[in-house]
Amino acid sequence: MKIIKNPEKLGWNLIAERPKIEKENLSKLVSNIFYEVENEGEIALSKYTFIYDHVHVNDFLVSKQEIENASNSVSSELKEAIEIAKNNIEKFHKSQIDTSKKIKTSKGVTCWRENRAIEKVGIYIPGGTAPLFSTVLMLGIPAKIAGCNEIILCSAPDKNGQINPAILYTANLIGISSIFIVGGIQAIAALTFGTKSIPKVFKIFGPGNQYVTAAKQYSLNFGLAIDMPAGPSELLIIADSSSIPKFIAADLLSQAEHGLDSQVILLSDSEKVIKDILTEIEIQLPLLPRKEIALAALKNSKSIIFENISECLEFSNLYAPEHLILAVRKSEKLVKGIVNAGSVFLGNYSCESAGDYASGTNHTLPTNGYAKNYSGVALDSFVKKITFQKITKKGIKKIGPAIELMAEAEGLFAHKNAVSVRLKSIIKLVE
Amino acid sequence: MKIIKNPEKLGWNLIAERPKIEKENLSKLVSNIFYEVENEGEIALSKYTFIYDHVHVNDFLVSKQEIENASNSVSSELKEAIEIAKNNIEKFHKSQIDTSKKIKTSKGVTCWRENRAIEKVGIYIPGGTAPLFSTVLMLGIPAKIAGCNEIILCSAPDKNGQINPAILYTANLIGISSIFIVGGIQAIAALTFGTKSIPKVFKIFGPGNQYVTAAKQYSLNFGLAIDMPAGPSELLIIADSSSIPKFIAADLLSQAEHGLDSQVILLSDSEKVIKDILTEIEIQLPLLPRKEIALAALKNSKSIIFENISECLEFSNLYAPEHLILAVRKSEKLVKGIVNAGSVFLGNYSCESAGDYASGTNHTLPTNGYAKNYSGVALDSFVKKITFQKITKKGIKKIGPAIELMAEAEGLFAHKNAVSVRLKSIIKLVE
Repeated sequence: MKIIKNPEKLGWNLIAERPKIEKENLSKLVSNIFYEVENEGEIALSKYTFIYDHVHVNDFLVSKQEIENASNSVSSELKEAIEIAKNNIEKFHKSQIDTSKKIKTSKGVTCWRENRAIEKVGIYIPGGTAPLFSTVLMLGIPAKIAGCNEIILCSAPDKNGQINPAILYTANLIGISSIFIVGGIQAIAALTFGTKSIPKVFKIFGPGNQYVTAAKQYSLNFGLAIDMPAGPSELLIIADSSSIPKFIAADLLSQAEHGLDSQVILLSDSEKVIKDILTEIEIQLPLLPRKEIALAALKNSKSIIFENISECLEFSNLYAPEHLILAVRKSEKLVKGIVNAGSVFLGNYSCESAGDYASGTNHTLPTNGYAKNYSGVALDSFVKKITFQKITKKGIKKIGPAIELMAEAEGLFAHKNAVSVRLKSIIKLVE
Repeated sequence: MKIIKNPEKLGWNLIAERPKIEKENLSKLVSNIFYEVENEGEIALSKYTFIYDHVHVNDFLVSKQEIENASNSVSSELKEAIEIAKNNIEKFHKSQIDTSKKIKTSKGVTCWRENRAIEKVGIYIPGGTAPLFSTVLMLGIPAKIAGCNEIILCSAPDKNGQINPAILYTANLIGISSIFIVGGIQAIAALTFGTKSIPKVFKIFGPGNQYVTAAKQYSLNFGLAIDMPAGPSELLIIADSSSIPKFIAADLLSQAEHGLDSQVILLSDSEKVIKDILTEIEIQLPLLPRKEIALAALKNSKSIIFENISECLEFSNLYAPEHLILAVRKSEKLVKGIVNAGSVFLGNYSCESAGDYASGTNHTLPTNGYAKNYSGVALDSFVKKITFQKITKKGIKKIGPAIELMAEAEGLFAHKNAVSVRLKSIIKLVE
């Protein structure tokens, strides 16, 4: 980890830059697969499943029997753990339900908004080595609370042509029954166009590699929406002398093990604190199964010593981290000053893993600086808000003349006339 | 207007399709202009302003003096009208402020969300024949309520090299002082990269022609966010025998005058109602200054007779209109059944123009079927929601073991370890 000492403000932007990711030009590949899936349906899905996952799949729907079998192969300890996480995630996302308030903006003019669930949503869960059943909770639970009619889950087959049992168990637990064994670009194409067995959806959620990310982006050309643009995971920690080096080191490593391109940033007002933490990293790193990945990620990473904690916070806002841990004295006092971040962890016992699994907050968060202009996934991500207005005769009499004037000034006379015909009829009635 | 009678359900999807818009391939043009603006700054802005707007502009910031002069040239009647609209829009958008609720998801685990304004936003207001000062209200007011630090307004120069006075007056009224005289692709590029005088922003709002739309889409490649994908404006009306044909005709025409590609759809359970409305259109159309535009738009448009009002509503949900007028008996009873729509107008006196200008709801709404997966612009569009969690020692003791199990099952041992080091230290403390 590179240590930077009291950098000048002019250089902050450069330090806050993410490592440039060589975006392979995937657009030709993505558009080809989309074209084939649109035109040949599941024949194309089978073809690309064989090419990328090296297994033959012809029936993409996971059967009830398979789900039941999966459930039997998940340990009861893990089931209990999932239950705890599920309860917390449910509690927090249910607290986000907002009720419609009717507002009288003028006499006779009532306006309000109502939530409607997005009817059909797709949830993409990466398969492969790390079976992210936690993401099933993070996306499936708010989709269920929102009341989405159809929740379609896709995940790539493993080398035996199956989806990890913990993923199937978790999906079934929260009431998702439409599970399809297909991954990669072809899965996103299937959700975009629909196939014989896989329904077309209106919005696609979920993490994925660069292929899935490019495919999600491409689905926007066909009227779909996606949760957010994706990038490698990140963690920024602000630590002072009240922090516990062993904890911070473990947190930095937990982020670093995600992938070679993960980035961790450590800020402090004390060189000693940083040195103590780096020493702890040396101790903990060799014990990790994914130490090679973590080591590579640490090479992208920086420790920066600032004058004081408020400068640390200023830099953090510029960087806009996905995850922000405040391991400082009176961490809650800093909350007001946080402008850009995905999810924030306060104090020495709020580790990022807690948010990844079980505190209740969502772990699908904006990366790569997108915390400046995007929120993480929440209940809102699964609903649209429709505005309503009810205007009475009195109401149109009150605001109608203003509308007429404004419409005329914008040169839109038919807009004006829609009010005029009503005002005239009201006057007639009065006469 | 084409009349369709009791279409079979199998054919509904086809009827609900929008007219295909020939998307000119603008990507080369857009990427060239972006490249030049990124590298040459305002020299490129001047160049493209001359090419597209045929005027020389070198100083893009509108001066205080110009704003003051503009204010003097707006009539006091129009100023009063704008004031009425402003008040209603403010009332409705202020009602959308939500307060953070802290939720204890487990003992010792507190989670909440807080809103933070997007620091820098760009507002694009089309110049040209229809000076859309109403859009200044619709975007500027929620940006101000949200507390965005920098609100940058761009609008194209007219043939005298100026921005319409009503736009300048309205912007100034709501407290926007950074107004730049630049439009088209070059304006969006300037907001994306920043230039000597125009600040870079994080999110761009506002309507525009196909060039601006393509440029906004392209800005996504540089980390920006945009309000929503744009398409031609639309109105769907459901009318029964309680509707007033003169009103409905005026509403359909008010939508049709927007542009050649606007689309209006009229649904009813009664052929007589539709015929009466079409007769009214014949009467009103010739009186409109923009009658050629409205006539062309009506050619894209359809009247459909269904068995009953509930079938009308079902079709409307499939179509997902930007604007929906319910000119039917007991219109409020239908509200529950509305699943996909941008903004809804209830009863005979709630005309669409009211929502365009002054009822208080926002007029920046999802078109082209996007009401299935997008909301209209609201206060939320100008904020991010950051999640927070504060976990105490008790809290991590309670949920820690579940996190350890889940992290291990996902193969993420450093995630597990971040909890384990904390649990061990707590046990030590107790010993």
